Parts: sequence; C-alpha cells; structure tokens
Amino acid sequence: MEETKKKKYTIRFEPSGLKTEVSAGTVLLDAARQAGIYLSSICGGDGYCGKCKVVVDEGQFQARPSPLLTPDETRENMVLACQTRILSDMIVTVPKFHALQTSQILMDVDTRRFSELAGEVQAGVFPFDPLVQKLYLEMTPPSVQDHTADHERLYLAIREKIDAPIMQTGFRILQKLSRVLQDSGYKATVTIGRRGGTTEVIEVEGGNHCRRNFAVAVDLGTTTVVAHLVDLTNARTLDAEATYNSQINFGEDYIRRIIYAEENNAFDEMQNRLVHDANSLIVTLATRQKIDLQDITTVICAGNTAMVHFLLNLDPTRIRREPYIASAGFIPPIRAAEVGIQINKRGLLYCLPGVAAYVGSDIVGGVLTTRLFTKKGTCLFTDIGTNGEVVLGNKDWMVCASSSAGPAFEGSGVKHGMRAGAGAIEKLTICDDGSVQFKTIGNTHPAGICGSGLLDTLAELFTNGIIDRTGRFNPAINCRAPAGAALTSGAKYSEGDEGRQFELVPAGNEHQQIVITQADIDNLVRSKAGVFAAIRVLMESTQTKLEDLDAIYVAGGFGNFLDVRHAITIGMLPDVPLEKIQFVGNTSIAGAKTVLLSRKALKTAEKIAESMTYFDLMSHPRYMDEFIKACFLPHTDLSLFPSVTETVMHRA
Amino acid sequence: MEETKKKKYTIRFEPSGLKTEVSAGTVLLDAARQAGIYLSSICGGDGYCGKCKVVVDEGQFQARPSPLLTPDETRENMVLACQTRILSDMIVTVPKFHALQTSQILMDVDTRRFSELAGEVQAGVFPFDPLVQKLYLEMTPPSVQDHTADHERLYLAIREKIDAPIMQTGFRILQKLSRVLQDSGYKATVTIGRRGGTTEVIEVEGGNHCRRNFAVAVDLGTTTVVAHLVDLTNARTLDAEATYNSQINFGEDYIRRIIYAEENNAFDEMQNRLVHDANSLIVTLATRQKIDLQDITTVICAGNTAMVHFLLNLDPTRIRREPYIASAGFIPPIRAAEVGIQINKRGLLYCLPGVAAYVGSDIVGGVLTTRLFTKKGTCLFTDIGTNGEVVLGNKDWMVCASSSAGPAFEGSGVKHGMRAGAGAIEKLTICDDGSVQFKTIGNTHPAGICGSGLLDTLAELFTNGIIDRTGRFNPAINCRAPAGAALTSGAKYSEGDEGRQFELVPAGNEHQQIVITQADIDNLVRSKAGVFAAIRVLMESTQTKLEDLDAIYVAGGFGNFLDVRHAITIGMLPDVPLEKIQFVGNTSIAGAKTVLLSRKALKTAEKIAESMTYFDLMSHPRYMDEFIKACFLPHTDLSLFPSVTETVMHRA
Repeated sequence: MEETKKKKYTIRFEPSGLKTEVSAGTVLLDAARQAGIYLSSICGGDGYCGKCKVVVDEGQFQARPSPLLTPDETRENMVLACQTRILSDMIVTVPKFHALQTSQILMDVDTRRFSELAGEVQAGVFPFDPLVQKLYLEMTPPSVQDHTADHERLYLAIREKIDAPIMQTGFRILQKLSRVLQDSGYKATVTIGRRGGTTEVIEVEGGNHCRRNFAVAVDLGTTTVVAHLVDLTNARTLDAEATYNSQINFGEDYIRRIIYAEENNAFDEMQNRLVHDANSLIVTLATRQKIDLQDITTVICAGNTAMVHFLLNLDPTRIRREPYIASAGFIPPIRAAEVGIQINKRGLLYCLPGVAAYVGSDIVGGVLTTRLFTKKGTCLFTDIGTNGEVVLGNKDWMVCASSSAGPAFEGSGVKHGMRAGAGAIEKLTICDDGSVQFKTIGNTHPAGICGSGLLDTLAELFTNGIIDRTGRFNPAINCRAPAGAALTSGAKYSEGDEGRQFELVPAGNEHQQIVITQADIDNLVRSKAGVFAAIRVLMESTQTKLEDLDAIYVAGGFGNFLDVRHAITIGMLPDVPLEKIQFVGNTSIAGAKTVLLSRKALKTAEKIAESMTYFDLMSHPRYMDEFIKACFLPHTDLSLFPSVTETVMHRA
Repeated sequence: MEETKKKKYTIRFEPSGLKTEVSAGTVLLDAARQAGIYLSSICGGDGYCGKCKVVVDEGQFQARPSPLLTPDETRENMVLACQTRILSDMIVTVPKFHALQTSQILMDVDTRRFSELAGEVQAGVFPFDPLVQKLYLEMTPPSVQDHTADHERLYLAIREKIDAPIMQTGFRILQKLSRVLQDSGYKATVTIGRRGGTTEVIEVEGGNHCRRNFAVAVDLGTTTVVAHLVDLTNARTLDAEATYNSQINFGEDYIRRIIYAEENNAFDEMQNRLVHDANSLIVTLATRQKIDLQDITTVICAGNTAMVHFLLNLDPTRIRREPYIASAGFIPPIRAAEVGIQINKRGLLYCLPGVAAYVGSDIVGGVLTTRLFTKKGTCLFTDIGTNGEVVLGNKDWMVCASSSAGPAFEGSGVKHGMRAGAGAIEKLTICDDGSVQFKTIGNTHPAGICGSGLLDTLAELFTNGIIDRTGRFNPAINCRAPAGAALTSGAKYSEGDEGRQFELVPAGNEHQQIVITQADIDNLVRSKAGVFAAIRVLMESTQTKLEDLDAIYVAGGFGNFLDVRHAITIGMLPDVPLEKIQFVGNTSIAGAKTVLLSRKALKTAEKIAESMTYFDLMSHPRYMDEFIKACFLPHTDLSLFPSVTETVMHRA
C-alpha cells in the first residue's frame, strides 16, 4: 500500500492534451487543477454539485458512487472528478461544457463603453489628473550662484508643474538622484504617485519619457478577471482582456474559497492564483500593444471584498463568519511588486475602497460610474453577480446591502448555465407556437445559457404559462396551453435525471440538448427573490416608495443584451416604467478606470464608501419575510407589479 | 616579484595586540585601518602631514624617506605608516599620541546640558510631541452591529488620540493587523511615525507596550560621533556615549575623505564605517540601559553635509568641487534598516535639514538650540570645528557662511594638538614669571592640548609678548621680556625640528615634552582669521555694526572651559562685552534632540534651513581681503579691538 501511494502516474487531459504527473491516490479534480485544466465546480470538491463530470478514456481509478451520475453517464465512464482517485496512468476527456473561451468575455462592448466613460473624465466631470503621472523637467543645473541641492531642486521643479504640498522620495531614488541629474544635464522625467495626501517620487530617469506611461485597471471578479490597458497620458483605453479567475477550482463562490483556504491553509495559493491571473492579463495586454512592462506604472483594482483580500493576502476569514467584517475596506496604495504584480518595480497598486464584507469596491465603482451619489432623485443600483448587491440613495444618503442570492444568474447552479462567453444563449424567446428562438454570443452553436438568457427563459416560461407563480412546472400544461401552441408537444417537456425539465434546444450535430430543470428554476427564483427582498428592505427602511424611484441601474455580467422588461416580469426589479431602467454592464472596472484617471474621483470614491450605510440582511428582521414573499412570480403581493399583472396574468 | 606580492604577512600592533594579515607590499597605514587601529592622519596618506608615525619593533619594510622624521626618530625605527610598505611579518608600536580615549569625550557635561535643553521642550517652548510615538488602543471588537473593518477601526482609534489627517500603513503591517487585533482582543499598541504630513503606522503589537519607546540622537561629527539615548515617553536623556569617527584614517577633514572615497571608490566603505560607529554607540547605550533594540524606534542625526551624505551613501563629490552643492539638504525620513542601522526593523531614521554644502544640519541644530531665529536683536552663532561656520541674524533674517578655517582648534595640524579627551590641556596660563600653569581633562598627565587650551596658549603667548602681532616669535624676546619674567630663560624657547618652538610643559616621567611651534601658531592664526573674516563679511554684508550684536554663541568641541575673553584677545570673535558671549557646547546633538521630541521643532528646523541665506566665501570678493587683515593678532585694524588694545598692547 505504502509503495502504491508513492507511485507517480501521468494523466493526460483531452482535447487539450495537457498532462500532469501525480501520486497514486490523487483526486482527479486536483490533478486537473495541477494540469491547469478548468473544471466547473460549485461545491469545491465536496461531491454534491455534480459539476465536475469528466469521461475516463483509459486507466484505472476508484470512484465513489454518486446519485448525480445517471446510469447512462456511468456506462460512458463518466465520473465526478472530485470523487475519483487515480490508480494508474489515465487519459481523461473534459466535456465541452467546462470549456472557457476567455477571449470572448464581453470584451468589445465593454471596451467601447468604458472608452466613453473615460471620455466623461476628459469632459471634466472629474478633472484629468491620474494617480500616477510622469513629468518631464528641464532644470537649471546648479552653479556657485545657485547652490540648491539636487533633491530640493527636483521638488521645486515638480512644484512648478503640479500641486504637491507634501512630497516623499524613497531612499533608493534619493541615492541615485544626483547621478541621474548630472548624467542627463538636469533634464529628467519623474514618475510621481499620489498616496493619500502625499506625492511620492517613485522613479527618476534621465531624458524625456513622459509619453510612455500606462496603467492597467483590473476587475477582480469571483468568476472572471477583466483587465483594461489605459494610456495615462491621454486617458484612452487601448485594449482589454479577460480570463477566468483561476481560484475557481477551489469553489465557485468566494465563501467556498475562504473555507477551502482555511481548511487547507491555502491563502498563499489563493493569492498566487489571483496574482498570476492579473499578471497574465497584464503581460498579454503589454505584448499585444508593444508596451514595456516598465512603462506600466499603475495597477488599480476593484472587486468584492473577498477578492481584494485574497489578492493582498489579508485575512478574509471573518467575511464568512461573525462578525462578518473585512480586515480592511480602505487599502492604502502599495508597491505592486509587494504582492508580485509585474509592472514597473516601483509602480503602485491601488484598490478602490470597499464598504463592508459583502459590499466591496466593485459596488463603490458602480455608484461612482452611475453617478448615483450626485442624483437629486432617489435611484437604485444593483449588481447581479454571485451576490446581488443593492444600493439605494441619492446625493444626500445611500444605503446598501448584499442579498447573497447565489450565482444562478452567472450560470452557476443551473444545469446548462454558463458565463457570458462564446456559445452562450444570451437572448431567448418562447413563441406562441411553442418554438424557441435564441441568439448565442458569437452566433455559434449553443453551449449553454448565460445570465440574460436565463432571465429571458424564466420570464418566457412564466409568461407562457409553462411554470406557475410558484415556479413549478404547470401540471395543467398539457391541457391549458395557449391556443395553437406547440407546448402540448411532449418533446418539449420531459422527465430528466433531475426531475421534470423543459427542452429549450434539442440536441444537434454540434451540441448537446439544452434544458431547464425544476431545480434550475428554483435557483433562479431564489436569486431574483434575494435581490428583490434586498431592494424591498432598503426601500422600506428608507420609506422610499415605488414612485420615488427616478432610475434603476443594473450592472453585472449578464451578457450584452439584458431585457429589463423581463427583470420586472419575474419580479427581480420593482415595477417602474421601463425607461427608468438602464443596464450599465461592468461598472466595477469602469469605476476603477475613472479613479485611475482622476485623483478627485478617488477622493469621491472614498467619500462614497464612507457615506454608504450598510444593512446586514442576515440579521435584519424583515429580510426573510420579504424573501419568502418574493419567491413567487412575480411576488405574493401582485399589487406591487401592476404592469405584470396586466400583461402576463391577463394572458394566462 | 609576482610571488612576493602574493605572500601574506601578519602584522601585530602594540600595545593593543590587534593583528591583521596582509599581502606583501601593503602600505602599513592600510594594514592599521584593516586591523581597526586608529592612526592620526590629516593628509589621508599623502605623506606630508607627518601624523601617522609608528615604531617598527620587528620586521622588514621599505620606507620612503621623509623630511618629517627627525634623525632621532629614524634611529628609533619610527616611520610614517603611509609611506611604509610591508615586506615581512611585523610588530609595530603605536605611540600614545594616537590613542583615543573615547569614553571621555565631553560626556558628563553634555548629558547634563542637554537634559536641560530637553527640559525646554517640556516647559512648552516646543510642545512635547515626539516624531515617533506609541499609543495603546483599547478598541471595541467588531460585531454584527459594528462592522467597521480592522484597518479603519484602528485609524478611528488612533485619531481619537492624536491629530493625524493623513495616515499610511505599510503592506506588511496591514497583512498582520487582523491577526494581532484578534489575538489581543483589540487591545494593541501602535507605533506611529511622522513622515512629512503623513502619519505612518510603523508597528502594531498586541497588548500595552507604550512605556518602552526609545530613540537615539546622533551627532555625526567629522572627528567624533556622539549619541544620546532618549526616553520618548518623558523626553528624558538616559545616557550618552561617544566614539571617534572611524572614517578618520581616510583623512581628518571631510574634503580629504571625499577625495579618498572618489579615488578608491570607497563610498560604501565610508558609509559602512559611519553606520558601524552609530551601531556601536546604539548597542552600547542599549546594553548599558538594558533596553531591547526593538524598543528603539527612532534615530535622529545631525552633522555636517558631508557626514550626512556619507551616512546615507548620497553622492558627496560636488561638496568639494563646483558647483559646491549637496545632493540633498532635506532628507526625508527613511527606515533606519535601509542604511543598516540596527534598531527596530521598521524604525525610522530622521536627519535634520541642512542649508548648503558647507552649512549642514549641525548648524541648523545650533540655531534651533540657541533660539537665534527668535531673537529681536541681532546675534552671532559660530561652531568652531573643522570648518568654522558662522550664522548672523535674528527673527527676521539669517545669513550664514563657512570659513573652512581648518581643524587647528580641533587639535589637528598642531604638533601637540589633540581632541578634548583625557590628558588634554584644556586650560593654560603663562604667568608673569614665565611659568606655565595648566589643567588637563581628567587631571591626568598632559598628553597634548585641546581646543580651549590652544586658544589659551595663543592668547597667553600674545599677551606675554612671546609672539608679536604677526604671530611670529618675538626676535626681541630675550631682551624685551616683562620685568622679572623667566622668559629670558633659554630652556623655554628653543629650535625644534620644525623651527622655533616654545616649551609649554617639559618632558616628565610619564609624558613627553609639550611645545608649540611656529607652524602651530600659524595654523591657529589662520583658523581664527578664517572665522573672524567670515564674521566680518556677514556683518558688513548685512550692515551690522559691532554695537548691534546682542549675543554671540560659540559652539564646538573645545573642551569644557572656553575662556571667551581669549577668543577676543586673539581676534577670533568681535570685541563685545564678555557677558554677551556664551559657550554653548555641542548644539548639533542638542538640536537633534529637540527635533526628536517635538514635531513642531522639526518644522521650525525646516523653516530655519529654508530661510538662511548662504554666502559662499570662496567666491566672495571681500573674504580674502578680510582674511589677510585678520591674520594679525588681534587684527590689522586695532580700532576693531579696543579692549584688547587697552589691556594687551598697553602691557607690551
């Protein structure tokens, strides 16, 4: 036995061909991680989400039996990777549904959108005044008549160009300063960074290097890490790239990852993965745009509180347990190299400030981007991701909460759910004749359904009477279908492994059948109920009436087309006139870029974070009640949704 | 030849017994440095100062002949160490006159004086508000109702105790913060340092450690490094210690050392020596006072510009050549560990600000200590060291200059000159009967003459008519001696190796003969002339008349007793009533301590440094003229010294 344990086996994963060598007895999910293979996994390896299915083509293994595998799947050598131990060399096929097309994550649209947002900076909403600047200084060399020391001479020259009452210079820069100035004839470029009220000289170089000053803004999503490359000399976004968060194998939501890190003392590993993801993006962007990494002087991050803690290796454990706090909400700027981010070795890493354990800097970025904090009328902002965070307020007050609604609208916890990548159904209609029309991202074969598609699905199932107000498949469906509908066709509606399911797309040559199950619907309903309950608690606590709402901003990785009407139909958003609702996309990275480009925006972000009042919903007496009431379509109280009642209920 | 070069020889130095191993051909002075032996050396090894005499007891060597060795000395195997190459194992005796009694450098008096100056801080001239503080904070632990993050909770607690609008925390502290707070039940001690306008959290520890917060103030003298240990909780000076600057073997003045460092690329070595000296003092003080080095959170330094540059390894080369500038006058606080100073590893190193290449932070310390910058009436401050720096001014204006007068009053460049250590003649009178009365430091056998003794000697020689107004031994001395004087005795007055000399102390059992030579007198006269010429230029440039001078402060390492009357007699200081002159001792370290204990004092020191107008005397059209006129005793223009004319000239 001892001997067997020590044996090393080679595991090859198809179709990528990636290989890794592991000890006998290693869990196949761990082998996949080691090989750099992404496998869906919500439960973090506990064996109950059933996401990490793979097919064993060759080799010996020991697998724990699971009710999550159908007899057909077992016959095809499908296993749960997390429940399978390796006993020999193996060849394993990773099914297509795990595949991540990283290059397709909402890039083009985002890039355009945020170039425009940067434009807002240029137009003077915030003055263009980046956190890190390069200044070219032509100083008069010292003489017997003008004996000011180099260090003070430099400060005088800087202060002729910018306002910098408090300045600071690192020791290494001070030591090389005189040499650089003498060699360059006192014509030098200084890189200055703003740290709180202090202006730091972070680099001094001979000659004029002012035109090469770049930054990377990073959105640290639980699922996706997105990076934009920005030219700090003109505020333009040059390029964007995204990758999946490679912590994902340790759990699809961050609570799971914190538990994993605690149980396995894997905080360093968590940090390494996130830093690695950021570095990959930075290197990709720099290479593509032919930019020297030394010319990237700044990285700015926004993300939920857990991701920011993982990045900096701050203690995240009390995010998940009492007293549910962050170690730090306001992160001082630090040298990027201190966490291993590979830009200029003296470049700075900024993090947008967060509000609380469950309302992170991504939400502050959202408030900044939507300018909710400047509005006279009361507005609602909600970011639908793994958690559905909600902000309600105006220029005078802001309250916020997190619904911890679960990642259903990110495609997790849904049988054929997926992120908004290539092949994802992002738009879906069930026609009167029962046929389903859909559009995929990249107009390719359907691989699954992303957030906006799921929203459409839930709304269409409901408006077509396929599910009832409780979200249950309508038992009367076969006899109570709308006139002329194909819904009576048995083909659409079957018993799957997970109980009743509705077929959205039949299997084709290039793709599997895509269905929605009762469990999927339950998850989606719980998610929307969480968001709506949070909205209700905030509105009631602040005595905000429906008619008081001037605007609703919806952020998140839904896809490019979010049918906001459907968000009302299912009862996720309050029943306001449609023109008041705006889908604003990834406001986390938009906020990060705004701050990057304007010191005043950073100060504003800090004020936003400080002034937001956080509601802890878990301990709130009304939340559970509101949640239960919202677990209906659209709600138990139909008077809250007159427009839905009018159109849908009427139709049914 | 090749082979001989490679051979290694052991050199033993007596009486210390210290040994070193060197290659054949090594210069003996370098071997002494390597063994850690101090040898006097003014010229830095060029062979023309004749200070580095040692006796070869055993061994082969090759020595360049030197006119600076008498035939007697050569017969006794005395050599100039800098002109001697090693050809075998050797035993070398280091004559007593090189010996440095480090424990005796003006310690007791200084310690007392500066405890009183610290008292000034306590009395409220500057508020007691040290640069680095420890605060004990008892925070309410976070709860579900009070979800402020640890980092912000800490800031709130700090800001309840002190004014700190801009705060900063290092990444390493941020990373450990949550652990420390949780383990300590949110009762912790923070160490906070002031850096410009920013308050930095430099350490966080669980529990109450407030009572253990210490600092060391260091005066970086060209000759002597002095350190005082200060308790930052109550501003008390606990102990003091001094050592010779171990750069001294590379030249007795700093210009020589800069040249040496340039020629030998020995900047690192220069830094290492100074850091080593500071560390030795710190360790000695900490050991004696049973203080953990980790509890020393601050080091503050004052010194001339060159010493500060050496300490930080900043480029000092343009101090000695055009445009005669410093690399930095204002040094930002840095982590002491960055230069190798061994206190708390996150402790801070502060340097007092300097004015110019030749007016360093020691002079700013002097102005701060004497409070010249607050005076209504015009005052004069002069620090007589290797350079004689002069400051003239009042609360409205200040001008300053450096006379580069040479280190004669520090005992260098004078045959039997020595520093104010044990055995130094610090007080000397030539009686009417021609006998010499003197007092040595430590009341021991005379070993040489220190600054105050040299001042006395010059004045007494002059007032007794032994030298004339040009500083020449009076050729008429044998026939024009005052009535009843023993000066006619040939024994007092002889031809030595360096020409005519006057015997102050005849040789005894325990000590050598002590004489003053014509060359000594010339050096002393040049030194005093430099200082007086600087004073004249500053006074004339500012149209300050003699009667405008309200006070004269004299600082420097003269010894404990400075006869200020003699300083007027020889024409070093302007002829003001004696009660206007005050000997203020080592104001460099006093200033450093004042700044250490009060942020406001640091701001004041910065204002002083900024507001002083520096006069470059070398390029000043009047300086050389004034210098030549001052090379008389007391001056060519006797009308400037009415009191001297009255008493001395009358007597002659």
